[in-house]
Amino acid sequence: MKHCIIVGGVAGGATAAAQLRRINPGIRITIYEKGRDISFGNCGLPYNIGGEVSDRDKLIAATPESMAERDITVKTHHEVLRVDSGAKKVTVKDSSGDREFEDEYDYLILSPGGAPKTLPALLNVPQAFVLHNLGDLDDIKAHIDGHGVDKVVLIGAGYIGLELIENFVRRGMDVTFIHRSEEVYRPLEDDMGDFFIEEMERQGVDVRLNAEIVEVTGNAATLDNGEEIDAPLIVAGIGILPRTEFLKGSGIKLNDSGFICTGDTGRTSVDCVYALGDAIETFYQHTGGKTTVALAWGAHRMAYVIANQISGNEDVVFEGLLGTNIMRFFDYDIATLGLEQHEVLEYDHFIVDHRQRNKAGYMDSSVPIHVRIYVSKTDGKILRAAVVGTEGVDKRIDILAAHIRLGGTAADLANIEVAYSPPYSSPKSVLNMIGYKTIEKLKQFDE
Amino acid sequence: MKHCIIVGGVAGGATAAAQLRRINPGIRITIYEKGRDISFGNCGLPYNIGGEVSDRDKLIAATPESMAERDITVKTHHEVLRVDSGAKKVTVKDSSGDREFEDEYDYLILSPGGAPKTLPALLNVPQAFVLHNLGDLDDIKAHIDGHGVDKVVLIGAGYIGLELIENFVRRGMDVTFIHRSEEVYRPLEDDMGDFFIEEMERQGVDVRLNAEIVEVTGNAATLDNGEEIDAPLIVAGIGILPRTEFLKGSGIKLNDSGFICTGDTGRTSVDCVYALGDAIETFYQHTGGKTTVALAWGAHRMAYVIANQISGNEDVVFEGLLGTNIMRFFDYDIATLGLEQHEVLEYDHFIVDHRQRNKAGYMDSSVPIHVRIYVSKTDGKILRAAVVGTEGVDKRIDILAAHIRLGGTAADLANIEVAYSPPYSSPKSVLNMIGYKTIEKLKQFDE
Repeated sequence: MKHCIIVGGVAGGATAAAQLRRINPGIRITIYEKGRDISFGNCGLPYNIGGEVSDRDKLIAATPESMAERDITVKTHHEVLRVDSGAKKVTVKDSSGDREFEDEYDYLILSPGGAPKTLPALLNVPQAFVLHNLGDLDDIKAHIDGHGVDKVVLIGAGYIGLELIENFVRRGMDVTFIHRSEEVYRPLEDDMGDFFIEEMERQGVDVRLNAEIVEVTGNAATLDNGEEIDAPLIVAGIGILPRTEFLKGSGIKLNDSGFICTGDTGRTSVDCVYALGDAIETFYQHTGGKTTVALAWGAHRMAYVIANQISGNEDVVFEGLLGTNIMRFFDYDIATLGLEQHEVLEYDHFIVDHRQRNKAGYMDSSVPIHVRIYVSKTDGKILRAAVVGTEGVDKRIDILAAHIRLGGTAADLANIEVAYSPPYSSPKSVLNMIGYKTIEKLKQFDE
Repeated sequence: MKHCIIVGGVAGGATAAAQLRRINPGIRITIYEKGRDISFGNCGLPYNIGGEVSDRDKLIAATPESMAERDITVKTHHEVLRVDSGAKKVTVKDSSGDREFEDEYDYLILSPGGAPKTLPALLNVPQAFVLHNLGDLDDIKAHIDGHGVDKVVLIGAGYIGLELIENFVRRGMDVTFIHRSEEVYRPLEDDMGDFFIEEMERQGVDVRLNAEIVEVTGNAATLDNGEEIDAPLIVAGIGILPRTEFLKGSGIKLNDSGFICTGDTGRTSVDCVYALGDAIETFYQHTGGKTTVALAWGAHRMAYVIANQISGNEDVVFEGLLGTNIMRFFDYDIATLGLEQHEVLEYDHFIVDHRQRNKAGYMDSSVPIHVRIYVSKTDGKILRAAVVGTEGVDKRIDILAAHIRLGGTAADLANIEVAYSPPYSSPKSVLNMIGYKTIEKLKQFDE
C-alpha cells in the first residue's frame, strides 16, 4: 500500500488529506502536525473574539478522531524536522513523547504554513500574543478572562491586525493601535484607504502612527517617542514567514524568500513531493508571473489538484490565481485582485477609476462604490483591480475575477450582464461603466 | 442634417437618444412619447410606495427640458400612430392639441415598451390601477391620500405584483393577495419558491390562491367563489403586452406574439429602423435561441449598440443576453438566468442542485443559499440557473452570468476564484461546490 505523508494539518494539509481519501481509498495517509489542533478555520479566529462566531468549537472542521474515521492517521504535536527526498523519508519529532523517528513515504505533501512574526520587544512578554492558531485564541481569551483585561494594544496594519481591531472593539474593549508607519493596509492604494484611520477614530480607537513599542515592563509599554502606555494585553499581527527551515538540505527548491516553488501540478522541484498553502510560491493566472498568496481559496484548490495528481488524474491542474482577496473593516469592504501595486509598475498600463452607487441611485440606501482597474496597454487586459465601499464590494471583485479568468478585457466589462433590480445595481452597473470608460480612454489613445 | 425619430421616451428611448447625441453631435433627434413623462426609473416605482425611494422626483432621470439642453427634442403626449417605412415617415397624434401630422426620418428607433394587461372586471373601476408609469404612481398615491385608504387588493404574482406586496406592507397597509392559480412567480422553480406564501402569511398578507375577482361594486369586490371582500384600492400586476399595434402594415416584422424582431445590430427587418426595450424579440447569448426579455440591462446595452450602428460604428454589436434577473421579496432574493424552465426541456440536460451557507458556516449570521443549474449533456454548458436565499444571491447570479458569457462550463465553476474571508464566502464557494458536484455527475455518466 502506498503511503502519503502530509506535513501540516491545518487548512491545506487537512483538505488535501480529505480529498486524497475521497479519490483514493487505497492509499495510507499520515498527517504530522506540529501544533495541538488540526483543520481549524484560522480565518475565523478574530470573529470568535468579536462574538460573530459565538461557538468556538464550530471553528474546528475536523479532529484527529474524525479523521481516523476516514482512515486518515493524524499525529499532533509531531514536528517534521527533516526531509530526505532521496530516501523518501522524513524525520519526525514527537514533542509530547520527546522522541525522534523516521517515516517513509511514497508521496509527500508539504503544508507547513507560516510562522507569525513578532517584535524583539515582545519576546518573553507574558501578555504579548499573536493570533495564528486555535491555541493562540484560547490563550488570548484566557488571559482576558483571567486578568479582567478590558484594554488591548494592537500592532500591525495587515488584515489580521485590522480584523482584530474591529473584533476587539466589538468585544467592548479599549483598543490602542500602534503602527510603525502611516501606511495602513498595504494591499490597498493609499488614496483609496482614507477611511481606515477615520473609521478607527470614529470607533474610539486610540491611533498611534509612526510609533513602535521598544520595551515592555509589567503592564507598561514604552514607545519609541518615550511615551508609556497601558498594555495589559498586546496582540501583534505583523505578518508571517514561510515555515520552511526544515526543508534546508532536502533538495526541494525554495525561492529567495523561503517559499516552496511549485507549478501547475502542485509538485515541487522533487518527484513525489507536493506543496500547498501559505508557504508556497505559485503563479498568477493572468500574467504567469510568480507570486505568493497566503489565502485559503488557492490552498483548497491546490488540495484538490494534488490529490488528483497523486491519484493519476494528471489532467487536473492548477490554473494559477489572481490573489482575489477581501477584508471587512467595520462597515467597509476592501477587495483587490491581480498584481500588487509595485508589480503593476513593470507593465505599460493605464488606470480607469470610477465611483458609482451600488444600487439604483434613487434608492435612499444606495451607497458609493469605488472601483479602480489597471489596464495593460499591450492587450487591454486587467492587471489589477481594487474595489472599496460599504456594500456590494464582494460581488464586484468576484465578477471581475470570473471575467479576467476567462480572458475578458477591460473594455469588455461593458458587455457584462448583471441582474438588475433597484436594490442590487443600476441597469448600467459600476463594472459596465468602467468598461465604457475604458473604451473612451482607448479611443483617446488611438487619436 | 440627418433626422432620427425615437418612438417612446422611457428607459430605452431616452437612453438611445442620450447615447446617440453623445456619439453623434451632428444628428437631429426627436422623441415622441405617448405619455406624460419620459426617462423615469420604472423599476423604482414600487419602492416609492414603500418609502425606500423617499424622493419621488429622484425617479426622473431626464425631462424634456434637460433633453432640450442636449439638443434633443422631446414631444410628450405625442403618440406615433403609423410608420410608413417606404416613405420613411411616421404619423403622429398630438393628444394635447388633438391634431395629427407626419414627420420624416432618416433613422427610426422604436422603443414603445409594453402595455399593462388588466382584467375585464376591473375596466372602469375607479379604484383599480396598474403601476406602469410615473402617472400611475401619482394616481395611486393620490387615491390613497384622497380617500384615506389603508387596504389594498393586489392581483398578479409576477415580479411587479410581488414587489408591490412588499412595498404596500412596508407602507403599513393591509394587503390582500389574489392569484388565479397556486403558482407564484413563474420564473422560479415551484419547489424553490416555497417561501413566497409562507413569507406573505408571516407578513400578515391575506392570501387568496385559485381566486379571481369577477365583479367590483363600490368598494366591494366579488370573487369567483362568491365571497365579497373589501377593495378600496386594487392594483393589478398581471403582465404586459408589447405595444406594437401601430406597426401593423409598416412592413416591420413582428413575431407571433407581437414583439419586434431584431438581431445583433438592433435593426429590425427594415433598413434604418431599429428597436429596443420591452417590445423586442432578441436572442439568448448562450444558445442563440430567440427570446423576449423585458429587462433594463438589455435595453441600456441595445441603446448603446443602436447609437453606434447609426453613427457608423458597425463593429459595436449586441451579443444577446442571458435574461439575468433578480427580485427582492422581503428578506429573500430570487434570481435566475438563461432559458426559461419550459425551454430547458428541449435540451438533453441534467440538473445539479446545491445548498450551502453564504459565508463561512461557523459565522452566526451565515444563511443558506440554494443554487440549481441545468447543464447541457452535449457540451457541459449551463443552460439555466436559479439562485435563492436571503443574502448574497445577486453575487452568485452575476458571477454565473460573467462565467457563462465567456464560455465557462458547469464543471469549470470549480475553478472560479472567489474573494474569501469569513463574512463573504467559504473558501470553496457555493459556485465552486456546484462545479465539483458537476464533475462527479459527469464521471457517473462516463461509467
